[in-house]
Amino acid sequence: MTEKPAYIIDRLIDRADTLGNPTVVGLDPTAALVPLPVREHYYNDTGRTPEALCAAFLRYNKTIIDAVADVVPAVKPQIAMYEYLGPEGVAAYAATCEYAASKGLLVIGDVKRGDISSTAAAYASHLAGADIEGEHHDVWREDFITVNPYLGSDGIRPFTDACAETGKGIFVLVKTSNPSSGELQDIVIDGEPLYMRVARLVSEWGAALTGERGYSSVGAVVGATHRDVGAKLRAAFPQMFFLVPGYGAQGAGAEDVRAFFDADGRGCIVNSSRGIIGAWTKMKGGSDGAKNLSVSEALTLVSESARDAALRMKNELGCHER
Amino acid sequence: MTEKPAYIIDRLIDRADTLGNPTVVGLDPTAALVPLPVREHYYNDTGRTPEALCAAFLRYNKTIIDAVADVVPAVKPQIAMYEYLGPEGVAAYAATCEYAASKGLLVIGDVKRGDISSTAAAYASHLAGADIEGEHHDVWREDFITVNPYLGSDGIRPFTDACAETGKGIFVLVKTSNPSSGELQDIVIDGEPLYMRVARLVSEWGAALTGERGYSSVGAVVGATHRDVGAKLRAAFPQMFFLVPGYGAQGAGAEDVRAFFDADGRGCIVNSSRGIIGAWTKMKGGSDGAKNLSVSEALTLVSESARDAALRMKNELGCHER
Repeated sequence: MTEKPAYIIDRLIDRADTLGNPTVVGLDPTAALVPLPVREHYYNDTGRTPEALCAAFLRYNKTIIDAVADVVPAVKPQIAMYEYLGPEGVAAYAATCEYAASKGLLVIGDVKRGDISSTAAAYASHLAGADIEGEHHDVWREDFITVNPYLGSDGIRPFTDACAETGKGIFVLVKTSNPSSGELQDIVIDGEPLYMRVARLVSEWGAALTGERGYSSVGAVVGATHRDVGAKLRAAFPQMFFLVPGYGAQGAGAEDVRAFFDADGRGCIVNSSRGIIGAWTKMKGGSDGAKNLSVSEALTLVSESARDAALRMKNELGCHER
Repeated sequence: MTEKPAYIIDRLIDRADTLGNPTVVGLDPTAALVPLPVREHYYNDTGRTPEALCAAFLRYNKTIIDAVADVVPAVKPQIAMYEYLGPEGVAAYAATCEYAASKGLLVIGDVKRGDISSTAAAYASHLAGADIEGEHHDVWREDFITVNPYLGSDGIRPFTDACAETGKGIFVLVKTSNPSSGELQDIVIDGEPLYMRVARLVSEWGAALTGERGYSSVGAVVGATHRDVGAKLRAAFPQMFFLVPGYGAQGAGAEDVRAFFDADGRGCIVNSSRGIIGAWTKMKGGSDGAKNLSVSEALTLVSESARDAALRMKNELGCHER
């Protein structure tokens, strides 16, 4: 490492400021979310194969990316939705990241990886690329990834090393949005829940990786469904940037996420997946209504609905362009 | 679900019994572990690319699989070592699983996945395959996978549902082999460490998935470096099968893993990666000595060394064929 890189967390904050929109679009496709005419178009070639559905996912994702690229600062593809379809699915995930980046969006790879140190170092190629005996290859194209903390510091260090080298960032799971998150995360130790212990570790891991806007490249995932936790962590860790899932489909609204922001309206980004990418299913008679559209009409419906939903979320969150 | 499937945990136990060998070979390739002549052979086509190194990994893995298929019951490819090389690497991981299964080996995919329920359901395709609008596709080829518990029960249920449907199994991270595993896993709550709480959850998750040999399809990952933990968990959870990493290269020996076995010499499988797949580097002058071999000579060296090491480990572990 020669000099301190530009931190991508600063670019994320600046882009959210400029657009007045701290929304992240979760690119989490399922077959049901892709309009039938689009699916049928790809099934026509090879049948209902992983390859065909991957091609449909990619067409759908590109449509959404084009629709929101000047409305939101970032997208967050959830790799599980692609990995569901096997290795071809993983290639479609990578192609989605690549396309989003080519359109100027920041890419948060929701991969939730975590392992012991030597293995975590291999996963860190998501950020740092692969070194094949001196030849560098950008084998993935994420700006941030999500990471699981259960293995402790030596499983995190390869990722923070990659952040220091590249300026990229990670979001560590602290308090997740699901109903049973509390089973382990809320266990009380010495008067405080486990997630506070994890948050303190996150704060330590990221202390040396703070950008010019005052936020660390090592952030935390905290579910929007836990507004009290958000308020507590916001107060305790002023340098901690939050990735907040659970908005919309998982039940949290604008009031719930208010507590995650700092006094300047910064400090977090809020993810919405189905609420944006599936907005078209609420239009013109829902999924049934889209059955008789042409491929191009169906994609226009997806595009316009996603853009409207992303703009609506901007208004709901009540942030302002700077 | 119509009837109870045959549990693959029983096949794993039976195969370990028959072979008198509870060793799992960790298929965790790196460039340095593949003999230079083999690497050069593949680099000759395209240079030092992910594609070329993947092809070299696959050749090397197949050599090892052929060498140990009648010596050990199972292999454990660590997906991170492949994911390091991007989507092509993930395809090489899947091809490795496929080849090992075709040779009669059980395959433990060390993927350490974990997420909220709907997302975990997507990851569960590692066990259950993908359903594309009514068409089933076996997109992965693992018999077991490893899973991270940090998100709690609803993130585990999709995996246990897949186990119930297919007879396959999971190993949940309980106490990992790395030095900083204790940061979270050893935190004391009400007089006992967090990993005991996790182990109790694992026991609950697997209670309905117990096979004919008395062990559950929901097992636990416990590092060989923690023999005291092994003894404690063995006594507390008689139905819990352990996947034990950390043998050899990470410092644990035969004495350390004794405590993980039950009185009949069952109840766990012990993973060795570099000790077996890298055994050739300790032969004939090490890696340098292999530089001038032909591709075929180098692969013969890998093959014979791996087989010898797997047989040696069988003797070290002191188990007997039945």
